[in-house]
Amino acid sequence: MSVLPATKIKFLVAPTSAAWLQQALSNLDIILLDHSHCERKAASAALNFMFRYPSSQALVRALTAIAQEELSHFELVNQWLERRQIALGPLPPPPYGAALKAHIRHHEPDRMLDMLLVSALIEARSHERLGLLAQHCPEPDLAQFYHSLMASEARHYGVYWTLATTYFQRSQAEQRLAELAVVESNILATLHPEPRVHS
Amino acid sequence: MSVLPATKIKFLVAPTSAAWLQQALSNLDIILLDHSHCERKAASAALNFMFRYPSSQALVRALTAIAQEELSHFELVNQWLERRQIALGPLPPPPYGAALKAHIRHHEPDRMLDMLLVSALIEARSHERLGLLAQHCPEPDLAQFYHSLMASEARHYGVYWTLATTYFQRSQAEQRLAELAVVESNILATLHPEPRVHS
Repeated sequence: MSVLPATKIKFLVAPTSAAWLQQALSNLDIILLDHSHCERKAASAALNFMFRYPSSQALVRALTAIAQEELSHFELVNQWLERRQIALGPLPPPPYGAALKAHIRHHEPDRMLDMLLVSALIEARSHERLGLLAQHCPEPDLAQFYHSLMASEARHYGVYWTLATTYFQRSQAEQRLAELAVVESNILATLHPEPRVHS
Repeated sequence: MSVLPATKIKFLVAPTSAAWLQQALSNLDIILLDHSHCERKAASAALNFMFRYPSSQALVRALTAIAQEELSHFELVNQWLERRQIALGPLPPPPYGAALKAHIRHHEPDRMLDMLLVSALIEARSHERLGLLAQHCPEPDLAQFYHSLMASEARHYGVYWTLATTYFQRSQAEQRLAELAVVESNILATLHPEPRVHS
């Protein structure tokens, strides 16, 4: 599989394939609509985290900020949809999220660690792929938009990783991250036929 | 039941009882903790709405703004908890929310109308009760805080009502609101023994 000479993103075992980029660049409108759903889901995920761990103050504080930022990105992506006259609407997700979540262990405290690391990996992959769109998108305004989102996306995976090492031993977090990062790259090794941020 | 000479809030059939205010003022710390949960739940509810009705542009736009505002209130309430050294933590909700939601009809488009009206009623009641706390709380700083939240809480029930009349005939929305408002007041006619925003 051809891979891109992208900046290597910490956490990710395998970089995104050239095939994904080609698929995405040929379907920019669908990618924007899927991106809108991703931002809303990321905000919901942060809120669900707080619902599950209401006593963890560092987590609640950090994820409130993340949820706010995801919502503001959701709004910005929706403005792009409106500008391009892309109707809001449902879009079946790729298998990525569900396949990753299937690896979250069921018992605490393993569950919390896995949830934090899965969120970190999703954010890291989003950061990598938005970066590829920023670099290769042929429409300068849209490329600039993707570029503008990157700094905060990078911060997000850092936040989830910091929380993992706040609530767990660093060595334990590193070992489990290594396992889940292999899972994450394996899921993406076969390109999903529908263009999505995480196809 | 003794009732308070509070400003009458549009939508609410019966004003809050003096017993609730007394219970709340005697348990300000628990009310603050419950309030934090209410703000997080209100943000989640707005996001779930968008998940259910992803094609409804006016709804998505209005509820993105509401979710952002609820999250910012969540953050402010959590700062109060920290200042008063009240530990974050779980708190069993009163029966109010579940009892109201039991009246949401199961089939569309009735479901959407009922969800919008139930949200409007919850926001209207929150607005009324935060107003009572603003007026009667013996701690001036905290009373001022409740006062500062009131303008946006009032806006929120207006937004849900506007959405109801955007997607439904006004007469249909008014008739169903009248039914649900009676349900809402009946639920609160018996004071829940645990102090809560909606006890």
